[in-house]
Amino acid sequence: MSDPDARWGAAAVRLVGEVVVPAEGRGEVIEGGAIDIDAAGRIAAVGPEHELGPAPDEVRRVGGLLLPGLVNAHAHTPMTLVRSAGDGLPLDRWLREGVWPREGRMTPEDAWWGMTLGSAEMLAAGVTTSCEMYLFEEQVVAAAVDSGARLVITPGVIAALAPDGDVGDRIGAIAAFHDEHHRPDERISVGFAPHSVYDLSPEQCGEIAAEAARRDALFHIHLEETEAERRLVLERHGCTATRALADAGVLDAKVLAAHGVWLDADDRKLLADAGAAVAHCPQSNLKLGSGIAPVAHWLNEGVGVGIGTDGVASNDDLDLWEELKLAPLLARGIEHDPQAMDATTALDLATRSGARAIGLDDVGELRQGAWADIVRVDLDQPAFTPRIDLLTLLVFAGSSRFVTDVWVAGRPVVVDGEVTTVDVGRARHEVEGRGRRLAAG
Amino acid sequence: MSDPDARWGAAAVRLVGEVVVPAEGRGEVIEGGAIDIDAAGRIAAVGPEHELGPAPDEVRRVGGLLLPGLVNAHAHTPMTLVRSAGDGLPLDRWLREGVWPREGRMTPEDAWWGMTLGSAEMLAAGVTTSCEMYLFEEQVVAAAVDSGARLVITPGVIAALAPDGDVGDRIGAIAAFHDEHHRPDERISVGFAPHSVYDLSPEQCGEIAAEAARRDALFHIHLEETEAERRLVLERHGCTATRALADAGVLDAKVLAAHGVWLDADDRKLLADAGAAVAHCPQSNLKLGSGIAPVAHWLNEGVGVGIGTDGVASNDDLDLWEELKLAPLLARGIEHDPQAMDATTALDLATRSGARAIGLDDVGELRQGAWADIVRVDLDQPAFTPRIDLLTLLVFAGSSRFVTDVWVAGRPVVVDGEVTTVDVGRARHEVEGRGRRLAAG
Repeated sequence: MSDPDARWGAAAVRLVGEVVVPAEGRGEVIEGGAIDIDAAGRIAAVGPEHELGPAPDEVRRVGGLLLPGLVNAHAHTPMTLVRSAGDGLPLDRWLREGVWPREGRMTPEDAWWGMTLGSAEMLAAGVTTSCEMYLFEEQVVAAAVDSGARLVITPGVIAALAPDGDVGDRIGAIAAFHDEHHRPDERISVGFAPHSVYDLSPEQCGEIAAEAARRDALFHIHLEETEAERRLVLERHGCTATRALADAGVLDAKVLAAHGVWLDADDRKLLADAGAAVAHCPQSNLKLGSGIAPVAHWLNEGVGVGIGTDGVASNDDLDLWEELKLAPLLARGIEHDPQAMDATTALDLATRSGARAIGLDDVGELRQGAWADIVRVDLDQPAFTPRIDLLTLLVFAGSSRFVTDVWVAGRPVVVDGEVTTVDVGRARHEVEGRGRRLAAG
Repeated sequence: MSDPDARWGAAAVRLVGEVVVPAEGRGEVIEGGAIDIDAAGRIAAVGPEHELGPAPDEVRRVGGLLLPGLVNAHAHTPMTLVRSAGDGLPLDRWLREGVWPREGRMTPEDAWWGMTLGSAEMLAAGVTTSCEMYLFEEQVVAAAVDSGARLVITPGVIAALAPDGDVGDRIGAIAAFHDEHHRPDERISVGFAPHSVYDLSPEQCGEIAAEAARRDALFHIHLEETEAERRLVLERHGCTATRALADAGVLDAKVLAAHGVWLDADDRKLLADAGAAVAHCPQSNLKLGSGIAPVAHWLNEGVGVGIGTDGVASNDDLDLWEELKLAPLLARGIEHDPQAMDATTALDLATRSGARAIGLDDVGELRQGAWADIVRVDLDQPAFTPRIDLLTLLVFAGSSRFVTDVWVAGRPVVVDGEVTTVDVGRARHEVEGRGRRLAAG
């Protein structure tokens, strides 16, 4: 898989849609568009069908709207096992009483089933890539591989779980895991996920960032999710979490900060100057009462932005279309400005910008050389009628319920609404029983 | 249809679900629940199947989750013809440049097709009742009757459209329309819809309210949608719109105020004391940049609350499940309190409380004597697994995509996901062509 140029241009299959939305950030809509996919699963060409080169042997007239697979920039997908746990509790009690006791009983096999069901849920919704922060990284990778999804796995480092708070062994284990499993061309990337600056010391974060930077791997951390967390860090360190991370050298790594609701302007300048990104999780932030992040400002200030579901104990599903719609709605609502975020920008957050935020340069847009991660949306719907302003419709009237087919690296994983890579009935049965066992204690 | 007692208790059909959610406001969940429906389409009994009386001849084991049809408390459904028009414009320009020029070209036949397609879109999403504020009331009623939906039609009164601003003839016409078409037992209720206090004078509103009160009909008005509107009314009348309405005697009528984003505490006390209700339209308020209404406060203060989609130029669909989910999410987000609104309350807004807000006492809950407006939700979904906290799942992981079957007054209108009362393909074709004509000018 080391010489992609040798493969591009030789299309193995051509998908012909009614419309192709490349999501390259300019709001282009290609009527009568088609996508040539090579034998290795990369895109060989995109454009109006009549402008493409000679057709390959296999031409599939799939119709509908073809867009890039959505990118979930912050997820804890094995938490399908603890879906909805602790609803209504404030974040600290939600963790302590709702989530952690159940997660503490989770076995590796549980985690595999939770990741499997969640992967199926995401694929059916057209979410082809997720950036996962979790323990049980062996199981998370195995389940993603089996499901056909694309994965950025960032195994968690949690001081509260380490003997005497010493996370050295865990960091070493993740470094070894990275070196064994990091294979972006086979859909798996590996990074590091220190939990937060209120769990780990800035020095520990700096140590982890050095390991990540050495590998050009993602450094994925919870940051400024709640006001209480902000106050705690200010009291403990005399500065914001972002400043503490910067002083510890963390911003030399490729940083993805999850949530960021309470980042101030100085924090955001530090992140923007470092080329760091934030995973905006609007639904989770609302559900837990954390607040509403001013994403339109982030974008103006040059911070990279993706959108994420977070875990399903605070969402309570993995349907990123809801975040795709919520991000521009909330931006407009809190700014009292209907121009605060347009449909093209919203779509970008869920695709190309999200992919960049989690460290992937060759997914999230439909262009030559990118992976053929593609979603087909049925346009023959009342919600898309009349079809005058298609991108606005896609974002504000769109929904996972219109997703019919999904490909990852050119491989069909959802066909006519059915996930073909996972036995969803079996996975539901397993997660139902295992989730009840975890809840019962 | 004048003696319902004669019909109740004699079940014509029994629907047996896996679970019945009566939505009576207490969060009850009936495992193994069933609903007996009489020959006139009212509910004869609800409860665990084994506790119901002798089964009628027809017993349908439909499984899934059965809940009341959702109630859309503020809609302008013929606006499907102008879906997404003017996206990104601030409210005044959105109306003046995006919406009104197209609506000005609308014919009665256009309106019938717009209402027909929108009715199908709502029914497929499990929305069985809508409260419509629009012109073309003859066509709105005809289309709703044909679709099988339940309707509260409040024909609009707009001074800006009347010769010399004299709305006397229009008020008389609506009064006559009420007296001819108001037949709640045949699914049609008629009220009055003065546009707003910035369009009509308080005195005109008072005159309309007197006509409404005389008929015990709904008085449905836009109120405090934007900050600009609030300032305008304060300058013009020296008091808030709500105070002006109160002084004009409007609050003696059954009042439904749409939006209410900028209502202050005094306004809300006036509304609460009068037993008035507000239609919360969270998605529309966000999309147009109007703001976020503090609904949790309204409820604490005793204001009646329903939820609405508003028109699809500011939404851009008629899927009330999104409002059902947004209402509690936003309440929690702006209050920074995950207990600001629980799932039971959210479901109530979309069902029973919404029905009361639009003047209907016998829909929005599953109880003996209520109309059999029922939605079946498929529970065999990853998003509902594990099924531990069902009401939380229904609200926060629920979606119109899980709606499979819908009944209105006991009559099936959606079967296996297909609307059986409307030729949706034909309606889409008509709205596509007509919508393009309106956009082209």
